[in-house]
Amino acid sequence: MYSRFEPVPRLLMGPGPSSVPNRVLEALSRPTLGHLDPQFIQLMDEVKALLQNAFKTTNELTIPISAPGSAGMETCFMNLLERGDEVLIAVNGVFGARMVEVAERIGAVVHRVDSPWGTTVDVAEVKSVLEAHPATSVVAFVHAETSTGVRSDAQTLCQLAREHGCLSLVDAVTSLGGIELRVDEWGIDAIYSGSQKCLSCVPGLSPVSFSDRAVERIRQRKTRPNSRFLDLTLVMDYWGGSKKRAYHHTAPVNAIYALHESLGMLAEEGLEQAWTRHQRGHERLAAGLADLSLDFIVKEEWRLPQLNAVHAPGGLDEAAIRQELLERHALEIGAGLGQFAGHAWRIGLMGHSCRDESIDTCLNALEDVISRHSG
Amino acid sequence: MYSRFEPVPRLLMGPGPSSVPNRVLEALSRPTLGHLDPQFIQLMDEVKALLQNAFKTTNELTIPISAPGSAGMETCFMNLLERGDEVLIAVNGVFGARMVEVAERIGAVVHRVDSPWGTTVDVAEVKSVLEAHPATSVVAFVHAETSTGVRSDAQTLCQLAREHGCLSLVDAVTSLGGIELRVDEWGIDAIYSGSQKCLSCVPGLSPVSFSDRAVERIRQRKTRPNSRFLDLTLVMDYWGGSKKRAYHHTAPVNAIYALHESLGMLAEEGLEQAWTRHQRGHERLAAGLADLSLDFIVKEEWRLPQLNAVHAPGGLDEAAIRQELLERHALEIGAGLGQFAGHAWRIGLMGHSCRDESIDTCLNALEDVISRHSG
Repeated sequence: MYSRFEPVPRLLMGPGPSSVPNRVLEALSRPTLGHLDPQFIQLMDEVKALLQNAFKTTNELTIPISAPGSAGMETCFMNLLERGDEVLIAVNGVFGARMVEVAERIGAVVHRVDSPWGTTVDVAEVKSVLEAHPATSVVAFVHAETSTGVRSDAQTLCQLAREHGCLSLVDAVTSLGGIELRVDEWGIDAIYSGSQKCLSCVPGLSPVSFSDRAVERIRQRKTRPNSRFLDLTLVMDYWGGSKKRAYHHTAPVNAIYALHESLGMLAEEGLEQAWTRHQRGHERLAAGLADLSLDFIVKEEWRLPQLNAVHAPGGLDEAAIRQELLERHALEIGAGLGQFAGHAWRIGLMGHSCRDESIDTCLNALEDVISRHSG
Repeated sequence: MYSRFEPVPRLLMGPGPSSVPNRVLEALSRPTLGHLDPQFIQLMDEVKALLQNAFKTTNELTIPISAPGSAGMETCFMNLLERGDEVLIAVNGVFGARMVEVAERIGAVVHRVDSPWGTTVDVAEVKSVLEAHPATSVVAFVHAETSTGVRSDAQTLCQLAREHGCLSLVDAVTSLGGIELRVDEWGIDAIYSGSQKCLSCVPGLSPVSFSDRAVERIRQRKTRPNSRFLDLTLVMDYWGGSKKRAYHHTAPVNAIYALHESLGMLAEEGLEQAWTRHQRGHERLAAGLADLSLDFIVKEEWRLPQLNAVHAPGGLDEAAIRQELLERHALEIGAGLGQFAGHAWRIGLMGHSCRDESIDTCLNALEDVISRHSG
């Protein structure tokens, strides 16, 4: 029943997880401490400070949720909305649609603004729907749509939200650490991300941050969130600053060691330098893809450097090509998701995977396998 | 802002996490794979089989939830209950009381049966409350109360539930791998545990298992659970057997490597042998505690071998003693929780921490520090 698991390593260039550097894996495997050990409490404070750096915020409530990005999304919606509250959600891919489902499950009234897959969120349409529904209290959207490789204009959307008296709620799962993102300067009120994308940490944690306005909204709730595990008033008491730490749940201690290390690497490199590295990597990849006649799905101005959606080559079995990339070259790229399933590839240049050598390996492997299948 | 984190290792003999063996830490740090990689999919199947072994079940729906035990608890309640459904919850400590809160947050009607802290769940009282509320659909209780060190009679309680047409819902966070637990034989319908107790894995995962009756109930729901992340109909599609795996969330890949290794160690030792080891360890500890005049809070017949609640020595500063155990002996024992805060200690003998050498180290350290404080 049991046999030792020795995975063949892969170069991870899909939509996440990205390849995890050895430094992070080594930190992950340090001896487990109790979740109330003074050494661990001090580490939690350092993780908070490093997350504030990555989000460009001074928000006190800036912590990793002890579960993947999906739970980070729910944390934001469950804490900011009560049954019957109105929320505008912009949808231009899988993760915007997931926001709608999450909001509906908690009984919120959703005003949905759809933009076609592969395009950016339509700011004018958001504005007109906000004007039509003045009781809307939250505006939610995805900054970097992992399903399509599209960037939306977070700064303008957050400004629009504030002009209409709404809190802004931003999915930054794929954007944090990969492209420009300024929580305080842009007036973002609630944001969640994932550990396994441009931070190149192991999957399983969801960094979140909440503005004072958002915290105030949470403190004024008339009802409790449906989930105790994700109730921020309780999570805050565990992660909170000077007060005695109240036990809420057992934190995933080792995963937080790893997050600390990956955030430390980001701080050492410099956040803006990381953004630039992703942009340069994207340009290198784009040049190589053009040589292979692989076309981008997304217009240049909207493209995410860290997630490149391309049309799979016509007439070939795209799934067979991906499988051969995995088996012959130990390279993982992403399949299309949702509307793009079966005819698109998603090539991720996230965090540690965004290095010249990885990009060149990826391009060479694509050239090799596509030519085998074309021959 | 960033400095490398090098924790001073501790011997973890509190209420969990327990000390994690090097084999498990080493497995944790293997190269990260994509969550849809064929190698990882195969590992998921092995983890399912190993969990079935640990739970003594053939339940198809036997998986780790990608979050700590608190989320496992919510998974059970959110999926088995809908708004207005009636549930009986037996409370004899912190975790029974938490069940009540979790059930109330999703709008269930709770029939609460309290037993005094430090005593076992009162079976006769459960029976009489069940008779008084024939519309009750679920009976929930904690098998091993981590806050008090008490074992309840899971077999009898589950039988009672079934006789009254109810599903049984069991908290096995501290019991799995430490004491006798037979999911199929006892007719348990829904059960959750934690990775960081008697399995001696890192914290962050919650193994769960559901009987066919429970799955049928879930499939017949009229409403969706409030949480998408914890909705088992979706989680099943990711962990499900022969069908194509549907992406639901990004699994915490490395944590699952560690769980696989810890479950493998349990299978190698043998489940019954592990139960016996915990019982023998408890007897060794109990003899030593008697020599130190440290008295158990719980009657002998109800005591958990893996969690020993004792009265802190009168007239001494119990918190200062625990702090000195940590600093002088690198030993963590647990404080009292809830009603026991300030005057009890909880000494855990969970998983890898339940070895003669750990027990002797713990007893010697206690003797040393108590004598310093008594002097």
